[in-house]
Amino acid sequence: MPHKTVVVGGGAAGLGAAGGVKAADPANDVVVYTQFEDVAYSPCGIPYVHGKEIETFEALFLAEKEAYVRAGIDVHYQTEVTAIDVRRKTIQVAGEGEVSWDRLVIATGFHYADPGVPGSDLDGLYYVKNIRQAMEWDKVIDRAKVAVVVNATPLGLEMVTALAHRGIETHLIDPHPWPLAEMADPDIMAPVEESWRELGVRLHFNTTLEAFLGSGRVRGVLTSQGELPADFAVVATHKEPENRLAAQAGLKTGPTGGLIVDERMATSARDVFAAGDCAELPHGVTGVGLQGLTGSHAYAQGKVAGFNAGGGSKTYQPVYIPWGTPAGKWIIGGASFGETTAKALGIPYVLGAADGISRARYYPGVKKVRVKLLAEPGSLRLIGAQMVGGEGIKERADFLATAIKFGLTLNDLAVMENVYSPAIGALNEPIVVAAQNGVNAAGKG
Amino acid sequence: MPHKTVVVGGGAAGLGAAGGVKAADPANDVVVYTQFEDVAYSPCGIPYVHGKEIETFEALFLAEKEAYVRAGIDVHYQTEVTAIDVRRKTIQVAGEGEVSWDRLVIATGFHYADPGVPGSDLDGLYYVKNIRQAMEWDKVIDRAKVAVVVNATPLGLEMVTALAHRGIETHLIDPHPWPLAEMADPDIMAPVEESWRELGVRLHFNTTLEAFLGSGRVRGVLTSQGELPADFAVVATHKEPENRLAAQAGLKTGPTGGLIVDERMATSARDVFAAGDCAELPHGVTGVGLQGLTGSHAYAQGKVAGFNAGGGSKTYQPVYIPWGTPAGKWIIGGASFGETTAKALGIPYVLGAADGISRARYYPGVKKVRVKLLAEPGSLRLIGAQMVGGEGIKERADFLATAIKFGLTLNDLAVMENVYSPAIGALNEPIVVAAQNGVNAAGKG
Ligand SMILES: Cc1cc2nc3c(=O)[nH]c(=O)nc-3n(C[C@H](O)[C@H](O)[C@H](O)COP(=O)(O)OP(=O)(O)OC[C@H]3O[C@@H](n4cnc5c(N)ncnc54)[C@H](O)[C@@H]3O)c2cc1C
Ligand SMILES: Cc1cc2nc3c(=O)[nH]c(=O)nc-3n(C[C@H](O)[C@H](O)[C@H](O)COP(=O)(O)OP(=O)(O)OC[C@H]3O[C@@H](n4cnc5c(N)ncnc54)[C@H](O)[C@@H]3O)c2cc1C
Repeated sequence: MPHKTVVVGGGAAGLGAAGGVKAADPANDVVVYTQFEDVAYSPCGIPYVHGKEIETFEALFLAEKEAYVRAGIDVHYQTEVTAIDVRRKTIQVAGEGEVSWDRLVIATGFHYADPGVPGSDLDGLYYVKNIRQAMEWDKVIDRAKVAVVVNATPLGLEMVTALAHRGIETHLIDPHPWPLAEMADPDIMAPVEESWRELGVRLHFNTTLEAFLGSGRVRGVLTSQGELPADFAVVATHKEPENRLAAQAGLKTGPTGGLIVDERMATSARDVFAAGDCAELPHGVTGVGLQGLTGSHAYAQGKVAGFNAGGGSKTYQPVYIPWGTPAGKWIIGGASFGETTAKALGIPYVLGAADGISRARYYPGVKKVRVKLLAEPGSLRLIGAQMVGGEGIKERADFLATAIKFGLTLNDLAVMENVYSPAIGALNEPIVVAAQNGVNAAGKG
Repeated sequence: MPHKTVVVGGGAAGLGAAGGVKAADPANDVVVYTQFEDVAYSPCGIPYVHGKEIETFEALFLAEKEAYVRAGIDVHYQTEVTAIDVRRKTIQVAGEGEVSWDRLVIATGFHYADPGVPGSDLDGLYYVKNIRQAMEWDKVIDRAKVAVVVNATPLGLEMVTALAHRGIETHLIDPHPWPLAEMADPDIMAPVEESWRELGVRLHFNTTLEAFLGSGRVRGVLTSQGELPADFAVVATHKEPENRLAAQAGLKTGPTGGLIVDERMATSARDVFAAGDCAELPHGVTGVGLQGLTGSHAYAQGKVAGFNAGGGSKTYQPVYIPWGTPAGKWIIGGASFGETTAKALGIPYVLGAADGISRARYYPGVKKVRVKLLAEPGSLRLIGAQMVGGEGIKERADFLATAIKFGLTLNDLAVMENVYSPAIGALNEPIVVAAQNGVNAAGKG
């Protein structure tokens, strides 16, 4: 029996969910609410338009609004949902009043953490998210000479590189001793730092934000190490779950603040599902809850949540989190966790590391690839991986996340067959060499 | 107790073996015999120097001869082994007489199959293998206007692309209806054919070689479809095992003509090992013996054979054969087998295919990626894969070979997490979409 699903959120999770509802049964009704002017654009492309790698913002739109109409997905743009009632199965919608649902998918996503310092209300603070705002900000960037990026998060990394490509004097401040310190190991980030320096980026680590300075509009940033000039500042703080409504409605949240969901992406309330950056998912190795993963995760979770909301049955599995991104002139990536996280969580590990190459040593465009594999002592089961290199990092990250999930060991990877063809791969695949080094380090060679 | 190992062959297998002997025990003696002037160059790079992607032949040399001396590996260059006696544990060496060994590693590699047509003794037939000869041939290429490449084998593909890049009128003849027809599926090769046509290559499929024409020096090629002009011809026929000596010595060979080895790379004769293109290894899925794999396999097998010859103990596992190579403007690759082979062998399969992209749709440099996955009906265990695309084909091939080896199913791959980052990967990983399509095709969606 078809029913009506309301999806709150028009991001990757929300649109994945809307598609999932229709996939379960095309006769289902589905209504999507978003505060934004658009759905189906790729926010992930915004930093690259700012960096001029992509020519226009228009290129980021994935589908015409018409396409959703044709697919039977009713999207309400620039429309705020102001309350959720899970007992009466309704929501309150600004300008629409009370709207009822049979099933609800919460896909309200994330907001950047409030920097919580004086001056946070000034103009000139750029929270990179909405594409229409990004178009306006691009004109600001055109006129700017100097900018501060607050925090070396994944978005911070992309924006630093983009602004440097744009010829702006770019300052990066971060409280940790190296960039992306909560995810990535220092030896993975060292080449990235070096390539930023070559691009003229000014790096300020071990440096906390104390205030935005200016009257009306930001003109500088006060840090624990002194003052920096700024025509504007990119606030790339942590992604926090956007869960005000859900919490008011009494839905359970976990230690991260993300909504607790089961493997069907069902929340603690009957017929209510959640997906994307507003939810919390278990890490496949540690079981620890994680929130604020990636757009790719949000989309996949949305599809499962929507499919189940629509009357189907699918499960979403614990995450092993392959990740990857350009940073400076390098590509960094990995799966699960690296040494820094393992140490912080007190997880023992055997390390296998190797410095290899991406193509034959003599083939133009060859790049260094550093691979680090973490394995459980004894069994040598792979539990984490990090890399810095060029081509093939994304595919290796996908592979290694799968290898962790399926319990492959360093011994397995040490004898892995690999393609050797001068233009595309070296005789010795760096993953294999890293695994061999790990096996030797564990005294099992 | 250290002993003396003789290695016949200075290619990837022979040098892998020499290193393996020393890795097992640095006190071991090891002597390598090769007919060539050099070891430790990469023959794999030769087509790319001809194509001008790589500037000089000198770049292909991996190590100075001195490096082998320092490593305690005694290489005898331009020295032919003329007989093997496995009972008396000796070999006959031209110019050295009888030489004894405690352990023998046969790594005599491959030769191109004799085309077996009139005119095969003419000058101007290029068998691409030896680097010194390649340097001489490059001067011939400089002066040539038109060339014929005989057979669309892996080397044939590389040479066609190289000669076309060189601006030569290049004809490819092959008896099959499409290139690489014994390995690759027609839909994988179709874009390659198209890109060759764009490069001006003249393709002659369903066309057999009947004779090389000319007196003294080749000036044309007679085919089943007529005559083609040729200033020279590249003879890129099948790789046959170079096993004359081993067969005379009474070593067992399999249906492919390759030497039969066990998992320790030991032959049928005591203390005699074999590795590389002269040996036959079982396919991981079918158990069928295969010969003439890749340089990467030869090197890995050599290391195992040498390690065991040197008194250590290692095993080499059945092969799942990740492969990949540039072809025209594309990269093709795969693992295990494709549809064509499955049909020829009568292996039933479920197909999951997808046409995806390598980066975000809007990111410059984005390329199509076609992925085909073959799975066992019922279990949906992956048994083969083929791809055509650009970046990341080599890493995907490595991954898919491992996935086949470890019994992953289409269901597993259909829910695989993947990196999404505009410059390096699309929201939908093509492997995942292909797996989902396969699951649906199998009626399990
Ligand atoms: C600049 C940028 C770059 C990124 N780069 C990458 C990348 O390279 N790779 C990657 O995988 N991911 C990337 N992401 C994705 C990102 O990190 C998140 O993981 C992803 O956006 C989460 O999707 P979501 O649908 O859960 O939430 P969001 O994208 O945050 O969407 C939330 C939606 O909910 C709506 N909403 C919230 N509250 C209400 C309300 N009360 N009423 C109505 N509507 C509401 C919003 O309008 C919005 O439509 C990027 C994101 C940004 C902004
Ligand atoms: C042009 C070219 C391109 C290639 N491209 C790739 C590629 O991209 N990727 C890849 O993985 N592989 C590639 N290969 C590798 C190739 O396909 C083989 O798999 C590889 O060369 C096999 O190595 P091998 O050591 O077993 O044999 P071979 O390379 O054939 O070496 C045989 C050795 O044995 C010696 N020998 C033989 N008989 C005697 C004798 N009687 N006395 C003394 N010495 C003897 C020879 O002198 C030689 O040193 C390429 C090879 C060539 C020639």
